Amino acid sequence: MGELVFVGLGLYDDRDISLRGLEEVKSADDVFLELYTNFLPGFSLERFAEICGKVPRAVSRTELEENGGKIILDAAKQGKAVLLVPGDPFVATTHVALRLEAAKHGVKTRIIHGSSIVSAVSGISGLHNYKFGRSVTIPFQENYSELPYEVISQNQALGLHTLCFLDINVEQRRFLSVSEALKMLLKIEEKKKKGVVTCDAIAIGIARAGSPNQTVKADYVRVLLKHDFGAPPYSIIFPGKLHFMEAEALMYFAGAPADIRRLVE
Amino acid sequence: MGELVFVGLGLYDDRDISLRGLEEVKSADDVFLELYTNFLPGFSLERFAEICGKVPRAVSRTELEENGGKIILDAAKQGKAVLLVPGDPFVATTHVALRLEAAKHGVKTRIIHGSSIVSAVSGISGLHNYKFGRSVTIPFQENYSELPYEVISQNQALGLHTLCFLDINVEQRRFLSVSEALKMLLKIEEKKKKGVVTCDAIAIGIARAGSPNQTVKADYVRVLLKHDFGAPPYSIIFPGKLHFMEAEALMYFAGAPADIRRLVE
Repeated sequence: MGELVFVGLGLYDDRDISLRGLEEVKSADDVFLELYTNFLPGFSLERFAEICGKVPRAVSRTELEENGGKIILDAAKQGKAVLLVPGDPFVATTHVALRLEAAKHGVKTRIIHGSSIVSAVSGISGLHNYKFGRSVTIPFQENYSELPYEVISQNQALGLHTLCFLDINVEQRRFLSVSEALKMLLKIEEKKKKGVVTCDAIAIGIARAGSPNQTVKADYVRVLLKHDFGAPPYSIIFPGKLHFMEAEALMYFAGAPADIRRLVE
Repeated sequence: MGELVFVGLGLYDDRDISLRGLEEVKSADDVFLELYTNFLPGFSLERFAEICGKVPRAVSRTELEENGGKIILDAAKQGKAVLLVPGDPFVATTHVALRLEAAKHGVKTRIIHGSSIVSAVSGISGLHNYKFGRSVTIPFQENYSELPYEVISQNQALGLHTLCFLDINVEQRRFLSVSEALKMLLKIEEKKKKGVVTCDAIAIGIARAGSPNQTVKADYVRVLLKHDFGAPPYSIIFPGKLHFMEAEALMYFAGAPADIRRLVE
């Protein structure tokens, strides 16, 4: 009986994998790769194949999810299979089903972790990690949901920051933009009137987190609405109460207006 | 004018750095290393020096914090300096001060992210990342605080999970154990009586997260109190409401009793 190793690819390109992850790939009998749960803007399959000396087999959402990951399980029953996953492998909840399926078939599973926006967000923004409440995904317009607004509101009431993932559909190359996400939240604000996401609120827009050319901009929502963040993927942080050093970091590293100090406790 | 690059070492050993991080080390003029904000149980400075072809200079808390990181800033003013940090560099809040100091001196800073318990906890436990509320550190006995209890209580009221970091003092080789942490919380429970951390509550103890021999055990607090988790570092998760797949993952991968299903919504 073989094993199934989930290896995180990290945030940005083909060199964000750890040395330990790379060793697992090199010693694997079969290497699979999914690139749909997250978007790695700098990832090149060719360069990656050169680095690890083998060409991973790209698997689609259909192969992995609708088919119970049979192709991967079959490989993992016979030898050592590696599944490469963007970011840290289980931040997207998708692969828990595959891991459970493997366990039920007696296949051992292991995880080699990778960098993730969940922790990187602190370095990127200067905001303290332990002051983030629950995170939330802002969906495409057609999946309109008031949950993100409610989560931001709940976190703010507790003085906590909210990390919002902006929806992606990598297969269709669709990425919810910062301004689309903000417009959706402003519409909900019109209805709920809690004063949570107004044009005068300050938020932080992030594009291409973890890449050498990432964009991080802290500003009024009305300014962010018009700002060009460049290429995807995107996320937004709604800050809660700030430590003075968080405010200072936002001013230095995200160009926040001095008015950000109004959020300091 | 040079630059200062913060590079994350990841969770466990000298091979958890990313390929991109390793390249930064190789091309740096000066490489510094701090190993006090987190404990990497498998890290060997000798092996790491062999991997990167240079010996990083270990810096103490005193050098980094009390002295404003002068030794690092001086190097970063003249060339490319790298500071290696366990985990993802800014999850511990310590280095924000150094980064700000660098910026004030006109030194550019960059970050190469690493794996962190903050995201890894989902793979380790099977719990969905977006259902974690704010995290909290349980301090040593002499720094007794009721905050961890209040955070767990607040998160549970919202149906959310709580990741608790157990305090460490790497210089003194002191690590708060799972049972010490639970005993402190049980004492606060006696006083507050909210029914948050009782002997019959179910929690998840974790030791050596991200290592090949990590321990993950979901069980009643009364069982965890007596469980031998082996070597440090440690963390504890207090689950909120569970999705049925989270419950199943806890049973398969953390040995949770079937009674865990009582937490399923």
